[in-house]
Amino acid sequence: MRALISVSDKSGVENFAKELVALGYEIISTGGTYKKLQEAGIAVIEANEVTKFPECFEGRVKTLNPYIHGGILHRRDKQSHLDQAKELGVEGIDLVCVNLYPFKATIEKTDDFEEIIENIDIGGPAMVRSAAKNFASVIIVTDTADYDLVINNLKNNTNTEEFRRDLMIKAYEHTAAYDSMIANYMNKRFNNSMGAKQFIVGTKVFDTRYGENPHQKGALYEFENQFSDKFIVVKGEPSFNNMGDISGAAKIAASFGEDNAVCIVKHGNPCGFAIKDTLLESYTEALKCDPISAFGGVVAVNGIVEKDLAVKMNEIFLEVVFAADFTEEAVEELSRKKRIKLFKQGTKKLELSKDPYNFKMIDGGFVYQDSDRVGDDEVKNAELKTKRVATAQEIKDMEIAVKVAAGTKSNCVVYIKNSAMVAVGMGMTSRVDAAKAALRKAEDLGLDVTGSVLASEAFFPFRDSIDEANKAGVKCVIEPGGSIRDDEVIAAADEFGMALYFTGIRHFLH
Amino acid sequence: MRALISVSDKSGVENFAKELVALGYEIISTGGTYKKLQEAGIAVIEANEVTKFPECFEGRVKTLNPYIHGGILHRRDKQSHLDQAKELGVEGIDLVCVNLYPFKATIEKTDDFEEIIENIDIGGPAMVRSAAKNFASVIIVTDTADYDLVINNLKNNTNTEEFRRDLMIKAYEHTAAYDSMIANYMNKRFNNSMGAKQFIVGTKVFDTRYGENPHQKGALYEFENQFSDKFIVVKGEPSFNNMGDISGAAKIAASFGEDNAVCIVKHGNPCGFAIKDTLLESYTEALKCDPISAFGGVVAVNGIVEKDLAVKMNEIFLEVVFAADFTEEAVEELSRKKRIKLFKQGTKKLELSKDPYNFKMIDGGFVYQDSDRVGDDEVKNAELKTKRVATAQEIKDMEIAVKVAAGTKSNCVVYIKNSAMVAVGMGMTSRVDAAKAALRKAEDLGLDVTGSVLASEAFFPFRDSIDEANKAGVKCVIEPGGSIRDDEVIAAADEFGMALYFTGIRHFLH
Repeated sequence: MRALISVSDKSGVENFAKELVALGYEIISTGGTYKKLQEAGIAVIEANEVTKFPECFEGRVKTLNPYIHGGILHRRDKQSHLDQAKELGVEGIDLVCVNLYPFKATIEKTDDFEEIIENIDIGGPAMVRSAAKNFASVIIVTDTADYDLVINNLKNNTNTEEFRRDLMIKAYEHTAAYDSMIANYMNKRFNNSMGAKQFIVGTKVFDTRYGENPHQKGALYEFENQFSDKFIVVKGEPSFNNMGDISGAAKIAASFGEDNAVCIVKHGNPCGFAIKDTLLESYTEALKCDPISAFGGVVAVNGIVEKDLAVKMNEIFLEVVFAADFTEEAVEELSRKKRIKLFKQGTKKLELSKDPYNFKMIDGGFVYQDSDRVGDDEVKNAELKTKRVATAQEIKDMEIAVKVAAGTKSNCVVYIKNSAMVAVGMGMTSRVDAAKAALRKAEDLGLDVTGSVLASEAFFPFRDSIDEANKAGVKCVIEPGGSIRDDEVIAAADEFGMALYFTGIRHFLH
Repeated sequence: MRALISVSDKSGVENFAKELVALGYEIISTGGTYKKLQEAGIAVIEANEVTKFPECFEGRVKTLNPYIHGGILHRRDKQSHLDQAKELGVEGIDLVCVNLYPFKATIEKTDDFEEIIENIDIGGPAMVRSAAKNFASVIIVTDTADYDLVINNLKNNTNTEEFRRDLMIKAYEHTAAYDSMIANYMNKRFNNSMGAKQFIVGTKVFDTRYGENPHQKGALYEFENQFSDKFIVVKGEPSFNNMGDISGAAKIAASFGEDNAVCIVKHGNPCGFAIKDTLLESYTEALKCDPISAFGGVVAVNGIVEKDLAVKMNEIFLEVVFAADFTEEAVEELSRKKRIKLFKQGTKKLELSKDPYNFKMIDGGFVYQDSDRVGDDEVKNAELKTKRVATAQEIKDMEIAVKVAAGTKSNCVVYIKNSAMVAVGMGMTSRVDAAKAALRKAEDLGLDVTGSVLASEAFFPFRDSIDEANKAGVKCVIEPGGSIRDDEVIAAADEFGMALYFTGIRHFLH
């Protein structure tokens, strides 16, 4: 039996090779792997002894050779193949252990195009794909984490077809991910990230119990190393819908830097938000905006949940608390609730991945775009359109309102007062309906909206929302502007003695 | 100069080869391509003359050979490479024309695993990847549509590095898409479509002017042949947001088979829907539900738009009409509006792609799931929970209400009367808020909701929405059931003499 080993990630490879030798395998190897194994005292044959052809063109051609690929690819269940192998002097290769130099590491460390091109592996993927195709007879190992499993299966005669098939799937996942990354990189570099093909590649983090609904199955996939190291399950099992809500809530809560922001989300939209001196105060104020919706909601906490906050949270049923971290006492306290789920990042403040791109499925495909961000200077640079000027607190509230509105589904309006959301209208087909629904809700709850700041993620098409805001005592409004009726809107604001600012930047979210 | 041609899709290959010969290329080929070119009278060298090794193992190994890959891969700008090539007898290959046997065609025509495995191309992708890596000197052609361009560039001395680089990107896109399809297929077959990696691959249909907002760039990508042949631009330029709205509207309008359904959508949610005897009547009724939101909206028409409907549509500003088709007169009529956009499928009724899976981006990754569908028997099989039984019209209205609610963002409630939507609440964090907002809107518009059917996409957690519905004169309600307070909800319905049905199937949509 012969094993060909040629790996970029060399961790554990000596031991793996030793075990294979002990199991009776001859080892064939190339380049750096060959050296490392030889230095470790392992009997190893250099590939060019097999290929009967020198390694050439500075290593560009080493294993692209019929003695290698014939050795891997010939069918052991066909006498004609076995006869032909014998006749041609092609000896079988029964195990291929190859992992590819991570293209990602290259593009992260250099912009030098020649170096990048040189690092595109040609021989490796060819061997991986050959061995995977012939998984009926060949073991293809592409993951260092599988070494022990492979050795165990060989030792215990449990090297089954199903086992090799799983490795085959992993192998094609490896080559597909590799070329996807190359294609995406080239399109990023030369086609503004909007090339002829777009590859969205995810690695499964976990299956969810079901999808958006119980009759759908679902799973969570992460982009390369972007998620699983920052999502620690403290208690409970995250559902498919939890993940969407956590993402929405965390995006809003994390967009205020070091501030003690707390955001409560239900069905993807915020129903509570505040930034106060302490997280306890922030949560307490956030909850007031809509305590009914908050029931069963998802809370994102930009900081460490301590016991006092945990006690307050336990006053109602929350489905999920997602925080930078929890103190031990807080976990103990929250765990008194059976159904609550606790997830953390193990950080001091929430850290998001800042994905530069974003996509949304449509029937038969998807739309792909740059991610939206609220610029740090959006409010600072906003243009005053009225006689009245915002107060210092109103400016602070506008900063918050613009960011919360950008994280709320269109059409939306957000009312912020003293750094807390006091009313929100979202996801509606008409902007004034959202404005009205928000204010009616606040009225029902006895919340005082007077003196709050109103933000809209897109322009007000008519003055009607300004009229409604005035009735509720709003004195400061911020919106992108750009409606053909801007003049009407500005006139209405002046009529009511409001301050009105135009940012010029829309933040639709669907 | 030498060109290696080995193609699965043989269209145009003879002419391409002839042109290359005329330009002074020697042609190397294998298998079916070799035969075809030879039969066409083209001078062609069989690959094994180059490889000095017989094609073996029933074609499993043909071109995996240093004379081929060295010929492709050696650098023409390095004397050491040129010298080594000469010494080894490796002659340059300057153009590689390879397209891969479409794996999709295999898996569509057979379930036989041996045949599927046999159809995984190993030599082809290796040559494509080699040639792409050495695009500095080698032309890699993977698309039959590029033959003319390649010949023209060769003839006109415009075979620039940039041109070859574009072909290189296409080549890696080709191999990435190929292995993505293999990996996804294997995971579908063996891992219930939720394998360790998930590859979402899109082919660009068009760039949009911008993304969800003007400061974001965007593009539309389709799954393999699922979109572009069913989306014909009649007038105007589809925007990023249009595509989401069209998808949402069409999904609802197309879910009623042959019926004359019309759905009006704004910001991803329906604000009008009806099924009447004619499309004109359907649109007229759909518009009544919320004529304010319909302004600038997207209308999906399950059928052919004729002149009478076009005239009616022109009464307000619609941004998009998406229909199975338009008559010429209708296009002429609608084109009187400058800003309207018209898109069609060129069919008799809307045909959707019925994607079996669906995904949604979250921070750092995405959630992936089975697509949701409303079953044909969901209403028929719903369980009556009250004394009152639905009338025949109410049953029809329930069928509509359940499907429209499933296509509306959660939390939502939908009121349907005589096959037309008369009120809708959507996208809100509280269900009763959605119920109230819907009814207040209907009241404002003077719409009579009495006798309408109420559907909710998820259970009513409290009786409050039933109380609201009763005030508005609703006599029939359908919902999944499953709340711990179902008894309260049933009691409320009985108290008001309503019919209440439980489907048992939730349709959250976020």
